[in-house]
Amino acid sequence: MSGKLKVGIVGGTGYTGSELLRLLARHPQADVVAITSRGEAGMPVSQLFPSLRGELAMVFSTPDDAQLTQCDVVFFATPHGVAAAQAEKLVAAGVKVIDLAADFRLQDLAVWEKWYGHAHPAPALVPNSVYGLPEAHRAEIAGAMIVGNPGCYPTATQLALIPLLTNQLIDVTDIVVDAKSGISGAGRAAKVDMLFAETYDSFKAYGVNGHRHLPEIEARLSVIAGQPVQVTFVPHLLPMIRGIEVSVYANLTQDISIDALQKLFETHYANEPFVDVMPAGSSPETRTVKGTNRCRLAVYRPQGRNKVVVTSVIDNLTKGAAGQAVQNMNILFGLPESMGLDTIALLP
Amino acid sequence: MSGKLKVGIVGGTGYTGSELLRLLARHPQADVVAITSRGEAGMPVSQLFPSLRGELAMVFSTPDDAQLTQCDVVFFATPHGVAAAQAEKLVAAGVKVIDLAADFRLQDLAVWEKWYGHAHPAPALVPNSVYGLPEAHRAEIAGAMIVGNPGCYPTATQLALIPLLTNQLIDVTDIVVDAKSGISGAGRAAKVDMLFAETYDSFKAYGVNGHRHLPEIEARLSVIAGQPVQVTFVPHLLPMIRGIEVSVYANLTQDISIDALQKLFETHYANEPFVDVMPAGSSPETRTVKGTNRCRLAVYRPQGRNKVVVTSVIDNLTKGAAGQAVQNMNILFGLPESMGLDTIALLP
Amino acid sequence: MSGKLKVGIVGGTGYTGSELLRLLARHPQADVVAITSRGEAGMPVSQLFPSLRGELAMVFSTPDDAQLTQCDVVFFATPHGVAAAQAEKLVAAGVKVIDLAADFRLQDLAVWEKWYGHAHPAPALVPNSVYGLPEAHRAEIAGAMIVGNPGCYPTATQLALIPLLTNQLIDVTDIVVDAKSGISGAGRAAKVDMLFAETYDSFKAYGVNGHRHLPEIEARLSVIAGQPVQVTFVPHLLPMIRGIEVSVYANLTQDISIDALQKLFETHYANEPFVDVMPAGSSPETRTVKGTNRCRLAVYRPQGRNKVVVTSVIDNLTKGAAGQAVQNMNILFGLPESMGLDTIALLP
Amino acid sequence: MSGKLKVGIVGGTGYTGSELLRLLARHPQADVVAITSRGEAGMPVSQLFPSLRGELAMVFSTPDDAQLTQCDVVFFATPHGVAAAQAEKLVAAGVKVIDLAADFRLQDLAVWEKWYGHAHPAPALVPNSVYGLPEAHRAEIAGAMIVGNPGCYPTATQLALIPLLTNQLIDVTDIVVDAKSGISGAGRAAKVDMLFAETYDSFKAYGVNGHRHLPEIEARLSVIAGQPVQVTFVPHLLPMIRGIEVSVYANLTQDISIDALQKLFETHYANEPFVDVMPAGSSPETRTVKGTNRCRLAVYRPQGRNKVVVTSVIDNLTKGAAGQAVQNMNILFGLPESMGLDTIALLP
Repeated sequence: MSGKLKVGIVGGTGYTGSELLRLLARHPQADVVAITSRGEAGMPVSQLFPSLRGELAMVFSTPDDAQLTQCDVVFFATPHGVAAAQAEKLVAAGVKVIDLAADFRLQDLAVWEKWYGHAHPAPALVPNSVYGLPEAHRAEIAGAMIVGNPGCYPTATQLALIPLLTNQLIDVTDIVVDAKSGISGAGRAAKVDMLFAETYDSFKAYGVNGHRHLPEIEARLSVIAGQPVQVTFVPHLLPMIRGIEVSVYANLTQDISIDALQKLFETHYANEPFVDVMPAGSSPETRTVKGTNRCRLAVYRPQGRNKVVVTSVIDNLTKGAAGQAVQNMNILFGLPESMGLDTIALLP
Repeated sequence: MSGKLKVGIVGGTGYTGSELLRLLARHPQADVVAITSRGEAGMPVSQLFPSLRGELAMVFSTPDDAQLTQCDVVFFATPHGVAAAQAEKLVAAGVKVIDLAADFRLQDLAVWEKWYGHAHPAPALVPNSVYGLPEAHRAEIAGAMIVGNPGCYPTATQLALIPLLTNQLIDVTDIVVDAKSGISGAGRAAKVDMLFAETYDSFKAYGVNGHRHLPEIEARLSVIAGQPVQVTFVPHLLPMIRGIEVSVYANLTQDISIDALQKLFETHYANEPFVDVMPAGSSPETRTVKGTNRCRLAVYRPQGRNKVVVTSVIDNLTKGAAGQAVQNMNILFGLPESMGLDTIALLP
Repeated sequence: MSGKLKVGIVGGTGYTGSELLRLLARHPQADVVAITSRGEAGMPVSQLFPSLRGELAMVFSTPDDAQLTQCDVVFFATPHGVAAAQAEKLVAAGVKVIDLAADFRLQDLAVWEKWYGHAHPAPALVPNSVYGLPEAHRAEIAGAMIVGNPGCYPTATQLALIPLLTNQLIDVTDIVVDAKSGISGAGRAAKVDMLFAETYDSFKAYGVNGHRHLPEIEARLSVIAGQPVQVTFVPHLLPMIRGIEVSVYANLTQDISIDALQKLFETHYANEPFVDVMPAGSSPETRTVKGTNRCRLAVYRPQGRNKVVVTSVIDNLTKGAAGQAVQNMNILFGLPESMGLDTIALLP
Repeated sequence: MSGKLKVGIVGGTGYTGSELLRLLARHPQADVVAITSRGEAGMPVSQLFPSLRGELAMVFSTPDDAQLTQCDVVFFATPHGVAAAQAEKLVAAGVKVIDLAADFRLQDLAVWEKWYGHAHPAPALVPNSVYGLPEAHRAEIAGAMIVGNPGCYPTATQLALIPLLTNQLIDVTDIVVDAKSGISGAGRAAKVDMLFAETYDSFKAYGVNGHRHLPEIEARLSVIAGQPVQVTFVPHLLPMIRGIEVSVYANLTQDISIDALQKLFETHYANEPFVDVMPAGSSPETRTVKGTNRCRLAVYRPQGRNKVVVTSVIDNLTKGAAGQAVQNMNILFGLPESMGLDTIALLP
């Protein structure tokens, strides 16, 4: 076993689970020792995900058999509610928990209950959990037992806005976030709406009147800004599998030149391994981050007017989910933050 | 010839040209008598567009041979500058002109020259040309000799905003238009950037710092509003062939309920044959208008806040180009406005 | 009602049902008077298929309420077994039946039972039913009460092979049919395998060891050839919604030139409204038949060798299902065979 | 420099060039020291391929400046003819050459000239070059100075047929290869036919009367079989970027059971790092090999008849081009054959 981290995954049959497996199968300091699925217990993982044939010899196990308390860290790639219900026992056993769902993304339990429709399963754990956006909270993550891995849209959105908010350059009461996501964000459940024949060669907005990432976006941006931030957030469904693009619109409260804005973004992210500020005038494409843990950003001030625009792209399953979770694992255990996350996107 | 309209098409080898042919081949009162292409003169149209095999027996001709002055109406499906250069002679011969490019979309010649980089080829014709958005200018179109057919993005954008602007419900100084278009909008020219392998399975913004549809959008919205309108316009490239979606964001200047907004949109467009206001809470999908001349709209007031959102979908080659041009032809000649435009979208 | 045909559709919530609605909504001599769905009874059709908003004001009804015996013709767009179970009562009432599923495609009941896994629900009806491929059986269809509408793959395959078989030019014991279909052929049921994220940007064979269209293909080709025909049939799944291409390979039993083969195909199909033999050397593309009732074919003799190759494209939902069903309806009632089927494919 | 291989790439602006860069940027024993492009000399590689931003700091150079004779190995990712013209000088300087184009794929110069339309630029080099399919010619590759990297279709086809041919199980005079490729196989040149709007949502055969991979397939299969092999080869164009599937059809000359065939394939490839024989009855999908150097295969004997079917999938740019080239480099220099080639496909 050679001192590698013993890793457990709860709920490995969805898309964030399979992405965790892809990344962890190549991580030099991690051994996946358990992967659970009630529905598929007994099935070899590589039967469900043929891309892992020859790469991973594991079999799905039931949660009971998985002996998760013997792991160093457990990832929850489950629907919301599951991690909160199981985290206490794990933490008590000294196991660190990274939840890829929403149980530890919101500190305000009333907001959580409003948007998720029932009481939080483990309210006592929330105050000590840490929001796992390394670019904003690296130090706190390093000392945490429970990490709430950010949502995909909130990740792309926060990375676009952090330099503007921390420098108090924009009106925080009127931000528009027009977001577009590939279909893998909807998960691997069998739904007519997500069939190929229903989604290919088409595009639409959805959830305009309210999407669960809205409270997360507003709460986390408010933490960053130090004051309440209000966002209009409209997600759209792209006819592709992976990739999120957000175009963010805000009103400048200072007359700062585009050159200064560009410099400010480059400086802010100069030491971030996974944030790439594109040259002025260029447009980040989702394909350049596909399968990688990177975020690529560009900042504009169109026509020299008062409105600043930032476009931001990530892979929703990698930086927007499993990749960021592995990044958080690396931080939690003092490993180099990029370990196991150095994939180059396929182009074309 | 039975009294049908004699129609000429200049520049029939691009996508707006082929869309005109598809529609006019089934129009009960139109005969395409000439279609020109310098490059493909002598080639049967159905060789270039095999979908027209058995439907259209025409051959591309040179502009000289086409005898366009004997037509009733000539469509220009050409790059900007061509229609303006040829329109005077046609109009003098009593031929009506519908330009699918940009020569007659802007009344302000200084703006035209700024965005198109050279002097307008026929400035004297501009004041008498009419902007061909029937939902805003039906009566003027009926009496025109030259129609400037609207751009694709401006069509979807104006239809989204007209009810709000004519009722003076929004702040006209701060409108965000986040627009997404299928790739056919880039035309049929051989460009590396538009290759399948460069664009499939990816998404990006483009032209953020300035797109030629921005001045058209602002000028036309200002006409509708009766005061200067300022827009932040960011187009994006969708990995699909046809379809535009725009999501429009504006600040309400009155506290109008979403029910009242819904009612206002439904009332405004009640008699429009090609504008469909979707039921409250639904999301228009581009696939439901593909190949049709329809625009589908939805209006929202998310979280009951001050921001009104409108989403609007069209097919960029039909309502955004050739379909609207045929609609204008119908108006110009007193035909039923929907004639030849009754296609139902393929679903799935 | 003006003497139009009264049409009923059983099972209108799948893709062949929605395609029937698209076509029949524009058919000049047909009125859809009933469309049934147990699951969606009471829902407006245009709510399920927004492309029909403003086109069709019908509501799904239960089969009991539909009073199908008052129709002139009833289409079954249902899983196999349903039409056979209901046809007797309808035929007794003088209603003609067109089954888009497999109940009346095979005359040999033992073969039917082998491939469908249970006894045929109405064996007595089978001998009098007619196989609805107009290009092979037009006269019989005209006098039928029950039409078994051909499968999608069998349609494309038979049209590719009929000229070769009727002229006894190929070895009937060794024909390879390599077939590819868009995903709509799998229907509208919610299955993980047909999710966008499982099928986009990928390609595979399926059903290699046995697909239900194999016995139909062999039986029908044997009827055409007048002797037993043996086929190796391998279907594949294309990452697109509509379209089938089959590439057919056979060994020539005579040394016939490619020019003579081309001429033979052109002559054979000279009067067929929906079969287009492409010029020598060209390749039919599925996009040129999308949404239309056409089949486009090309014949080759590569390297002048003994092997003849035919490629054939159709839209699986139109000529491969609903379009051919409407064509059969036209024949059954003495209407012009192309009535309501004159759509031109969108290109691009 | 640490003893790593000094690698040069001629022609790095196309898709096989960018794929080489992606792979070599992560290869532990290779340093790309020169990459040439006449057209883009002076441009940073990461400007042309943004996926390489932060990964590779190189700039395109002219061939003259590249000092290729100081490399250990030079890859030619160029049109045919270029490698042959430059190889002599490199080989004389002790530099090994791997040509990703067609100059060293055919030993018969008359055949080469027939299919490429002019005299071979360096006929004297051909006899000593080696055909770089490791699964068939590993030992010869190890000692070569010039490797002709196989074509994409020939790679997938040979891997499907080698076990059948080396065991003399099939009739070599009548093999059908129905092949399908993603569009990246057509390269990065600006051609109307390869635009997104011309190829998305469509499918067709092409080159039926003669494709340059036919003589390569026949020549190489004949070497493997030890007798002349004749193939009917029909390629098709898939609406996706990467991936080839070939379905191969042959007549068995012995009555061998499917179980024995399965066993034979598994045994033949048991020690191959990049060939994966799928379990009986399953279907390889192109997505499971995307971006990887693997080939996945399945063998069938449908209906227990005389015809054996093999389906084979690869990524045309990886195992079909750049990945196999790196595999050959590893063999040429005695490195572990899988070094730098251990990517796991993205799924979904």
